[in-house]
Amino acid sequence: MKNFQIQIRVRFKEGILDPQSQAIEAALQKLQFKSVEKVACDKLFMIDLKAEDEGQAVQLGRQMANQLLANVVMENFEVELVSA
Amino acid sequence: MKNFQIQIRVRFKEGILDPQSQAIEAALQKLQFKSVEKVACDKLFMIDLKAEDEGQAVQLGRQMANQLLANVVMENFEVELVSA
Repeated sequence: MKNFQIQIRVRFKEGILDPQSQAIEAALQKLQFKSVEKVACDKLFMIDLKAEDEGQAVQLGRQMANQLLANVVMENFEVELVSA
Repeated sequence: MKNFQIQIRVRFKEGILDPQSQAIEAALQKLQFKSVEKVACDKLFMIDLKAEDEGQAVQLGRQMANQLLANVVMENFEVELVSA
């Protein structure tokens, strides 16, 4: 078993209403950042784990996202290997 | 004024206690992901904006992070240009 770091990025699917992003957009406008046109807030989970190889590390990441980290009805996710 | 997309990544400083990450770590362990050793949750703001040039776009991003998006006492941030 070797040490790996993976990154799981979770974001809302196209068309899903995201009140947090809208609130940040409105707050930035109020702070005079008038040139802001759109804000999206993604979540980024950095996970250190042990695995047999890179493939297994990414595979574990996909399982974690499906089971816990992402709401797959409303969100998409991407798993990436950061370091081996 | 041209369109740019910037990305602002906000993460806790080293040594700051992050209960959300700890809770996710514990939940993953309970779901039988025993090989997980550490979890960190970062925030990623994707911002579409208008600016004169790339330098101004990144500069605006730094101001937004300082004024609203990051708690600079506990968090670090990085601003990156994603697309011009």
